[in-house]
Amino acid sequence: MSSAVITGIGELTTNDPGLGRLRDAALVVEDGVVAWVGAARGAPEADERVDVGGRAALPGWVDSHTHLVFAGDRTAEFEARVSGEPYAAGGIAVTVGATRAASDEELAANLRRHVAEARAQGTTTIETKTGYGLTVADEVRSARLAAGVVDEVTFLGAHLVPPGADAAGYADLVAGEMLDAVAPHVRWADVFCEVGAFDEAGSRQVLAAAAARGLGLRVHGNQLGEGPGVRLAVELGAASVDHCTHLTGADVDALAGSPTVATLLPACDLSTRQPLAPARRLLDAGATVALASNCNPGSSYTTSMAFCVATAVLQMGMTVAEAVEAATLGGARALRRTDVGHLGVGARADVHVLDAPSATHLAYRPGVPLTWAVWRAGARVR
Amino acid sequence: MSSAVITGIGELTTNDPGLGRLRDAALVVEDGVVAWVGAARGAPEADERVDVGGRAALPGWVDSHTHLVFAGDRTAEFEARVSGEPYAAGGIAVTVGATRAASDEELAANLRRHVAEARAQGTTTIETKTGYGLTVADEVRSARLAAGVVDEVTFLGAHLVPPGADAAGYADLVAGEMLDAVAPHVRWADVFCEVGAFDEAGSRQVLAAAAARGLGLRVHGNQLGEGPGVRLAVELGAASVDHCTHLTGADVDALAGSPTVATLLPACDLSTRQPLAPARRLLDAGATVALASNCNPGSSYTTSMAFCVATAVLQMGMTVAEAVEAATLGGARALRRTDVGHLGVGARADVHVLDAPSATHLAYRPGVPLTWAVWRAGARVR
Ligand SMILES: [Zn+2]
Ligand SMILES: [Zn+2]
Repeated sequence: MSSAVITGIGELTTNDPGLGRLRDAALVVEDGVVAWVGAARGAPEADERVDVGGRAALPGWVDSHTHLVFAGDRTAEFEARVSGEPYAAGGIAVTVGATRAASDEELAANLRRHVAEARAQGTTTIETKTGYGLTVADEVRSARLAAGVVDEVTFLGAHLVPPGADAAGYADLVAGEMLDAVAPHVRWADVFCEVGAFDEAGSRQVLAAAAARGLGLRVHGNQLGEGPGVRLAVELGAASVDHCTHLTGADVDALAGSPTVATLLPACDLSTRQPLAPARRLLDAGATVALASNCNPGSSYTTSMAFCVATAVLQMGMTVAEAVEAATLGGARALRRTDVGHLGVGARADVHVLDAPSATHLAYRPGVPLTWAVWRAGARVR
Repeated sequence: MSSAVITGIGELTTNDPGLGRLRDAALVVEDGVVAWVGAARGAPEADERVDVGGRAALPGWVDSHTHLVFAGDRTAEFEARVSGEPYAAGGIAVTVGATRAASDEELAANLRRHVAEARAQGTTTIETKTGYGLTVADEVRSARLAAGVVDEVTFLGAHLVPPGADAAGYADLVAGEMLDAVAPHVRWADVFCEVGAFDEAGSRQVLAAAAARGLGLRVHGNQLGEGPGVRLAVELGAASVDHCTHLTGADVDALAGSPTVATLLPACDLSTRQPLAPARRLLDAGATVALASNCNPGSSYTTSMAFCVATAVLQMGMTVAEAVEAATLGGARALRRTDVGHLGVGARADVHVLDAPSATHLAYRPGVPLTWAVWRAGARVR
């Protein structure tokens, strides 16, 4: 058992209620876990010592919403969208076709490449979803590949009714045979509850079947307009409802009165020319907010949690402290994880050091790559 | 005289009217200049060969508006602003005090650090301004230090009427003794023409005096509200008027009918909670648009031209091609440089290679650090 002390931390955001934000701090890692945290001058000895020279440190990002088991590219569709030009053959189905056609090795390599890119930017916990397979075999394959690479895997067979399929029949398949086959590989199930995807009845059917098999629930809801997603997520005790771009007052109240996390995806809102989600209304009402990348090749092709934090501060009325917490502890709550998203004693030693004296620089210096060092479970990954 | 061929360029944005955008391209560099550009299969031999593996390349960013001769930090002021809290002692005068108190070595090191940070992100031409000295000696010092580090230096003695000074008397000083002392070190003069800074008469006085001494003109105008800045810039033949956040129809028409470039500073607009400048209106009217960072510790503390490009595409209605051109060729036009901002034969060999197959990824993948390699005047700087 070896230990290391990370010292010379000018500002340490711990997200620990007893510790808060520390100046001139140090942190001792043993066996991949935080063993001690406090003032640098009081730090115990350790086998190894790293001085970060006064830089700021915070918990690694917890990116609780991505879609990284995919193949292909939708650059032309993106370009048409931002140019206001029509584009015939776009959408999720394009990625479904490319994903089905790809080999296991291609899919795994693409997934690992994106996870490595995220790690290099400070993301130490990452969730990803199936949902570009949409057959029993392809969904199982996606789940199995993801389980080997990421921290949390979500079954999203209910991403889209595949072209040519009948909506009710497909919901039956997802809630039955597909769920049975995928469940052993995943912890979560999710439904895209939106006009054009799954309606309230279909969403409820899939979520209820997943809960009956012991899976935790997540919902894609209220992305393109007001709808039943948030209400359903709260009613069924989902861990998170994601997007939340268009909310009624009743939706905000429901979230504020429940443990369901509102996961906001600002890079997706910007990339799809939606309004930015009402973070301030949610926070003021008392809801728990997470920020995530929604990294996927269609609506939000970024792994940059720092971009999400900067956008939240500069354009969504969140303070820096709120945005940083939402992108770390908020993501952990959305995944019902207590071991990540904070740096209290006993937490997984996921430490993100910035080339900056404070976490405020994440919004004060938008776009500047500030990640200086990253430890995940005590291992230096950058 | 040695030569190098950069080949395997999957997509090459040349900004050259005869060449346009090339696929599977190569580029030969001799003596720091582009000697040949065309299809990879037809590239001539060279002493050295670098294959970029199908990645996209474009001209290095031309950041035509920064304020990098400064000391100190305004993190707390930024944090108060984005939190909607009052902050007593903010503003340019804080940076003026810190800059005057700093040694030459401190100022030069800070400047070099920020320029290196910009280069590492693909910026190969950079303008910077004085304006945190505001005494004859301090302005001369800033100009002299900047001239040793950046490509273009602008005299901005008319940044702010120093606390305690009389506005008319200070304009006389700037337009007289200060200008005489600084002029040998700079190519440009600039005025902050805005309510609370310099009015039309004071701005005209300074700009006319600078023109009489052979300096090129730039104007900070129309940042916080409509005003005389754009009109004055066009009337006096300024190379650029910068900010352009609040424009009347007459301002847009004036810019469209003149060679004066409208330089937009989206990171500043976001950081100060202003609306984003009306890029689409300007482009549709026929004005030449540049994008720049306005990097400074107060209103826009970023060196990321990629962030500016992504913001322009995602939120200002610019196409990717327009935004990339504005951040390269547009900046060159704003600095009246014909040797940078494009990659035609004879251009300075400033080449920015992305870890992406197309320049579209700059907006498709916001926040992801995509810079893979940078050559400046043929020398690899990253
Ligand atoms: Zn999603
Ligand atoms: Zn400026």
